[in-house]
Amino acid sequence: MSSFNLRLNERITSLKSHLCVGLDIANSSFNNSNIELKKLKDHAKKVVESTRDLVVAYKPNFAFFEKWGSRGYQWLEEIVDFIGDDIIKIADAKRGDIGNTANQYAESIFGHFGFDAVTLSPYMGWDSIAPFVADEKKGAFILCKTSNASSKDFQNLPIENKKLFEIVAQRSSKWNASNNIGLVVGATASNELRVVRKYAKNMPLLIPGIGAQGGDLKTSMIEGNTNGDAIINVSRGICFAGDLSSNAIRSKAEEYYNNMRELMDEHR
Amino acid sequence: MSSFNLRLNERITSLKSHLCVGLDIANSSFNNSNIELKKLKDHAKKVVESTRDLVVAYKPNFAFFEKWGSRGYQWLEEIVDFIGDDIIKIADAKRGDIGNTANQYAESIFGHFGFDAVTLSPYMGWDSIAPFVADEKKGAFILCKTSNASSKDFQNLPIENKKLFEIVAQRSSKWNASNNIGLVVGATASNELRVVRKYAKNMPLLIPGIGAQGGDLKTSMIEGNTNGDAIINVSRGICFAGDLSSNAIRSKAEEYYNNMRELMDEHR
Repeated sequence: MSSFNLRLNERITSLKSHLCVGLDIANSSFNNSNIELKKLKDHAKKVVESTRDLVVAYKPNFAFFEKWGSRGYQWLEEIVDFIGDDIIKIADAKRGDIGNTANQYAESIFGHFGFDAVTLSPYMGWDSIAPFVADEKKGAFILCKTSNASSKDFQNLPIENKKLFEIVAQRSSKWNASNNIGLVVGATASNELRVVRKYAKNMPLLIPGIGAQGGDLKTSMIEGNTNGDAIINVSRGICFAGDLSSNAIRSKAEEYYNNMRELMDEHR
Repeated sequence: MSSFNLRLNERITSLKSHLCVGLDIANSSFNNSNIELKKLKDHAKKVVESTRDLVVAYKPNFAFFEKWGSRGYQWLEEIVDFIGDDIIKIADAKRGDIGNTANQYAESIFGHFGFDAVTLSPYMGWDSIAPFVADEKKGAFILCKTSNASSKDFQNLPIENKKLFEIVAQRSSKWNASNNIGLVVGATASNELRVVRKYAKNMPLLIPGIGAQGGDLKTSMIEGNTNGDAIINVSRGICFAGDLSSNAIRSKAEEYYNNMRELMDEHR
């Protein structure tokens, strides 16, 4: 028996990779916006086939599947199967609901779909988190400081001499008794990343916001991997690289993989 | 053209009802937990058939559908069609994500599924809300003070001389330029309901937590309907009333309908 955070660390160490590829496959990302679901399915498989040996985890974003209704969730079932059991699969679903409902979501995401981890919103507190972390083999990444501009609206509110996202980091660290909780911290918030690490020693960080959103890779890697692991998510930047061919996708993923590895080597 | 909040008010006024029925149809709520999806589908239809003329809105809870994967989302498509266009349909999905992703969810919930409104988490701020309220005919209920015990973990944190949920109410009120935003306030938090109403004048409140969760109907109705509309959600208390027959479900819904109407008459 081994906790989710330990399994994540083992995969990071053995692959020497910190790359998470987000599967945000939208028809609007193709030149032709009337593209059919079949083409999106093929493209998602192409992304996985071209990058499998380079990535710690894939992170399908539920919105991009749900947009297609039940056919989209069928696609999600297919792509999860296609990824297979070795690679870590993170459900980017940002769930957050009362315990009774959270139980149903946990059954869905871990039981039905077979994901290894999920992203969660903290707003409803501990009982909205607990059902997802009852099994130490399954993990949860709690939203802490997100990559969007409006993250400041509430996350930066001052509470005593801290900000709300610091309190979230602090509480999450207390909840991490089974070593299966991590935090989401945007790459666009490099100062905050340093602050979060103070509270979240040894907790993995999932860092989105690199690529299309313009976050800083170097700071994310160095601060993120000090006192714990970080995985860096890239979605559109890899899934829609160059001419959208397998080669273009592979090259872009290799570029990220190599950049991250160099930054780690310099940092050591 | 008319805003979501106006449409909601018209339906409340013409029906003289404040009842929202939550569709949380879990197999664990039947005596036989090995029950098949077909039986759950039939039961959900039975609930809608037995209560149609008494309710302002139905609120399917996505978790209870998602638990069944793509077949569950197919069920959601079917039940939304079965409810039809006259009754307001609220997607209890508690979404909250960056703008690009929120756009996909809005396309899903309003475009694909045809819901009239959605529940949202505020943690990621305005750009996670905006895509859902761009069309004034579609509404959003933002989580403010939720009905679960752990809601205090973050929602009650002190910020200057307020609590976080008060700031959420205040900001949401500023965002309500198109008259299509409301708030979720648990019936288990009657003092907070009074406080929220100070900031959320004329905004509709969606009040869950009556029935299985033990919230206070009288306070919810009186405080909720002072300076604005309130709809009271009952899920398990109606869907799984008595012997689960149409009669039992209908009687329980009528009981809630009549109780609420009497409370409103006394209050006037």
